[in-house]
Amino acid sequence: MTGDPARQERLRELNLGLVFREVLAADAPLSRTELAAATGLTRPTITRIVEELLAGRLVTETGTNPDGRAGRPRVGLTLSRTGPAGLGLDIRSDGLAACVVDLAGRVRHLAFAPLTDTDAPAVLERLGRMAAEAVTAAAAEDLTVVTATLAVPGPVDGGIVRTAPALGWRDVPAADLLDAALSGLGLATAVDSEANLAARGELHATGADRALTHFVYVSGGLDIGAGLVMDGRLMRGARGWGGELGHVTVDPEGKPCRCGSRGCLQTYASLPALLGGEVVPAGASPESVILGRADAGRPETLAALDAAASALGVALANVCNLLGVDTVFLGGSFALLDSWLSAGVQAELSQRVLFADWAPVTVRPATIGPDAAAIGAALAVVDRVSADPSAWLAANR
Amino acid sequence: MTGDPARQERLRELNLGLVFREVLAADAPLSRTELAAATGLTRPTITRIVEELLAGRLVTETGTNPDGRAGRPRVGLTLSRTGPAGLGLDIRSDGLAACVVDLAGRVRHLAFAPLTDTDAPAVLERLGRMAAEAVTAAAAEDLTVVTATLAVPGPVDGGIVRTAPALGWRDVPAADLLDAALSGLGLATAVDSEANLAARGELHATGADRALTHFVYVSGGLDIGAGLVMDGRLMRGARGWGGELGHVTVDPEGKPCRCGSRGCLQTYASLPALLGGEVVPAGASPESVILGRADAGRPETLAALDAAASALGVALANVCNLLGVDTVFLGGSFALLDSWLSAGVQAELSQRVLFADWAPVTVRPATIGPDAAAIGAALAVVDRVSADPSAWLAANR
Repeated sequence: MTGDPARQERLRELNLGLVFREVLAADAPLSRTELAAATGLTRPTITRIVEELLAGRLVTETGTNPDGRAGRPRVGLTLSRTGPAGLGLDIRSDGLAACVVDLAGRVRHLAFAPLTDTDAPAVLERLGRMAAEAVTAAAAEDLTVVTATLAVPGPVDGGIVRTAPALGWRDVPAADLLDAALSGLGLATAVDSEANLAARGELHATGADRALTHFVYVSGGLDIGAGLVMDGRLMRGARGWGGELGHVTVDPEGKPCRCGSRGCLQTYASLPALLGGEVVPAGASPESVILGRADAGRPETLAALDAAASALGVALANVCNLLGVDTVFLGGSFALLDSWLSAGVQAELSQRVLFADWAPVTVRPATIGPDAAAIGAALAVVDRVSADPSAWLAANR
Repeated sequence: MTGDPARQERLRELNLGLVFREVLAADAPLSRTELAAATGLTRPTITRIVEELLAGRLVTETGTNPDGRAGRPRVGLTLSRTGPAGLGLDIRSDGLAACVVDLAGRVRHLAFAPLTDTDAPAVLERLGRMAAEAVTAAAAEDLTVVTATLAVPGPVDGGIVRTAPALGWRDVPAADLLDAALSGLGLATAVDSEANLAARGELHATGADRALTHFVYVSGGLDIGAGLVMDGRLMRGARGWGGELGHVTVDPEGKPCRCGSRGCLQTYASLPALLGGEVVPAGASPESVILGRADAGRPETLAALDAAASALGVALANVCNLLGVDTVFLGGSFALLDSWLSAGVQAELSQRVLFADWAPVTVRPATIGPDAAAIGAALAVVDRVSADPSAWLAANR
């Protein structure tokens, strides 16, 4: 058995993955000795694997001595600033975004373009040009883009955007359009909802807080979505459905919703509900209009914010009771309106969450701002390379 | 590297686990040749591993030739009827249950006792005697009980039953009480909610339907709970909280609930809500009283069933929108009342689930009846042995 070359090669790949994921998960550079201790592998095996990881631009050496001990400076290993990179593309209400991150999740390129035409082929064509520019910009920093993930404002089912009302999309084959727009770049592509990808970005940003394995990221805006993280991973639901917080029923007899139901959270807490018919002047954002009216003490805006906060609290209490999550991140427009919403949300949670007596729910604004989904989309590279670093090494010898 | 005995031993264990899990997942007996093909291991390795699994009573040989081909009868390998077994204990409104299953999940022992005293130490003491009897009964069939899991009607947080109103329990250290009651039996113990464990039982029962990886199991009764299965595994939420469907808000301004909130599903669809103050005669079940009144056309019972069905539909629509599950199992009292509830539930789901146009939600009575939680609890043995079959073999040489 021990002489089987295929078996030996597989074992080598498994060990290489083990070492790479240790570096990936570490908060500080690791020495070869620490890697040997963490993985149980011998020093000669570690030395050989580290050579491969260095040659393949997956890790890099630091000359620092972070533990401050005296003696020979310790050589630490950390994630490379060169090598594989991920591209995130995001279609949002105020424009298109393209973002490149490296293996450590650092943003290395970020570009925007106006959204002048919401027609799907036109949007994808424009994103294709932004992607080509991003790949070129990344290459100038010795980064090789390997993944491209598109964030869309609506649920995605097998690459098809079922409904994205902000864009007027229904049953748009976004994955196929993305592949066509990016053909020639040789990237592994995917499409997912903005809320899921923003939650993925938030998971990375809060990665140092290892206790935070169950949370909900709520994205406010024209539509309301949520990304659910359980056991440290994003739950997408069957066929990618899921996270449709905007269509959770707050009042069964409430106002009709565009979706055909009644009393959806959407009808209380989306930007159109908060604006109450007010027109947004050119150049202004809906949130700035709402904040201006609230600061001026306009009663209908204050009432709308109160109703939105209560409705959001009821919907989030349902999430907490069902999923046992005890942390809520308010993202998108909810992050901007946080100071007008969080007390009302918290009041409903305290009343309605069964376990609030034992484990109060924490509500806080999202850590990363409007680029959360673009960053989360770009982070696909981390998942891909960490799942099989040997594949990257084989393709980049 | 190849000569390292510890490494070789680990590889041997990994391969043994690989082979055992193939037998576990198969719908029919597998030949050694099929096992070699499925795992990529060599025939000599398979032969050696199968010898170990046979000697350790994890698998057994069948003499059948299920594919009906001519020639030498094929020897198939399937899960043993002897060897490791799991014990499930369940505290339910109509009594205590103890159940033993083998590795294939077949029920091999099932015993009941009346619940005369809901005081926690008394209940656990009685369950301890039932457990000892079950272990003895199992041993008579050459089964060795290795796990004991207790199902309780309420959320469990680190072994502590936070609230189980049906029993009048609050902050009961059930895991410690279970360990004390079962001391001397040498079992690996755990405590979980009835709804979670019933969902685990349902997951096993529907195992042949591999497409069914996302579902919610709703347990009706004095209290209402849910077990959520996503990506083929039970989601317990942070600290085991989660699945509290009974406290999902159906109407924010609804009737006060015992939990301190208002308009919880509980206030519409629990057995007390459906009974509406009607007294249950001694010897009758609450469900039989409700069914009798409904069959007699009593308007207040019919109205209560309608309200319960709508409320259950609203709460389940929230689950579907949030989690993207497309199958609902009605268990506990809901299974018995199914014919009076399912149309109303389905109507709400059709109206309120965003993806219902693309993927209608299926509502069906649970596959296994009132013993679902006891069976699900007993199935812990399958998880334990499949995670590390070598540990069982080492302990049972």
